Amino acid sequence: MERGTFITLEGTDGSGKTTQAARLAAALEAAGREVVRLREPGGTAISEKVRALLLDPANGAMTAPCELLLYEASRAQLVGEVVGPALACGAWVVCDRFADSTTAYQRAGRGLPASMVEGANALACGDCVPDVTLWLDVSPRRALGRALSGGCDRIEAEGLAFQERVRAGYEDVWRRHGDRVARVDASGTPDEVWGAVVAALAERGVHV
Amino acid sequence: MERGTFITLEGTDGSGKTTQAARLAAALEAAGREVVRLREPGGTAISEKVRALLLDPANGAMTAPCELLLYEASRAQLVGEVVGPALACGAWVVCDRFADSTTAYQRAGRGLPASMVEGANALACGDCVPDVTLWLDVSPRRALGRALSGGCDRIEAEGLAFQERVRAGYEDVWRRHGDRVARVDASGTPDEVWGAVVAALAERGVHV
Repeated sequence: MERGTFITLEGTDGSGKTTQAARLAAALEAAGREVVRLREPGGTAISEKVRALLLDPANGAMTAPCELLLYEASRAQLVGEVVGPALACGAWVVCDRFADSTTAYQRAGRGLPASMVEGANALACGDCVPDVTLWLDVSPRRALGRALSGGCDRIEAEGLAFQERVRAGYEDVWRRHGDRVARVDASGTPDEVWGAVVAALAERGVHV
Repeated sequence: MERGTFITLEGTDGSGKTTQAARLAAALEAAGREVVRLREPGGTAISEKVRALLLDPANGAMTAPCELLLYEASRAQLVGEVVGPALACGAWVVCDRFADSTTAYQRAGRGLPASMVEGANALACGDCVPDVTLWLDVSPRRALGRALSGGCDRIEAEGLAFQERVRAGYEDVWRRHGDRVARVDASGTPDEVWGAVVAALAERGVHV
């Protein structure tokens, strides 16, 4: 059986990933494709338990290396239990955040060494790499306004300077992996962003 | 201030580590030393939450890479929040399990690649390496009998063949790191094992 297609959506908090992921999954399903829609951290029972640890404001004493390794633990479970088997069965996997989030948040945001973050990502992902990554790029000031309208978890509470470093981290990923990562202008309305998503996918041979 | 001393106890389930760790901590305290006694996974509020995930029999779907990364997350928090600061303040740290457990259980027991386990240990520990490690060596059949008298967690439920692989993993660690790791015959009574612990420490210049 032909391997499925793995599409990830990335961006700072409030960049509209969740909205676009839902729209993409619906469009693929409408075209008759089998779609598995996921979010990170999470997507399995065990990964959701790890997610709860990560986002709980009570865990403010969490060190950056611990945070890194918890994200990777959640990811390793998702890859082994869901993403790998789904792709092997020919499904389309649409995931809201993946390893690039760790590069942007833990390396650029938290300042952990690149070698540490790359090593940790490799431990969790093995050879499971997205076929296309949509980076929804929007100014953190605008994105944070969207995100905070719904309350504030432990990561979102880091504030604007942190989100600016994360955005710069995404830009670095995009420059180094331009073959895989498409930059999408996410400053417009959901309909405008969806148009840009469709165009970016078409440029990479994925027609929805 | 002079750096403290970091002593870890290792061995298969039921090898008597917890009993000997308590005795060692008491002896050091009686000699007027400041002692921090810890267990892995655990030892911080966040690490104990990760421990609960790891040992819960409900999490039977956990993949070996996820398990590895959860142990390392718990360890990274323990190192950053407790072990590192305690050693910097000159304290003696006595820890029931540390990175050698991951080498024995996840590499030898679960069969994960050595490079993966070593890389993960390095991410969690950085340059925090025990000064002395006491490997309490006892036949897994005997040790498992001790351990199961108190019920059975997710790891202990793996059974005798798994524990035999873990014991072989410890022997391999001991052979490769004989300068740091002391093999202690743990087949006797608690008093006999304590005598062997005291002798092994004295051989390495630690007098209790």
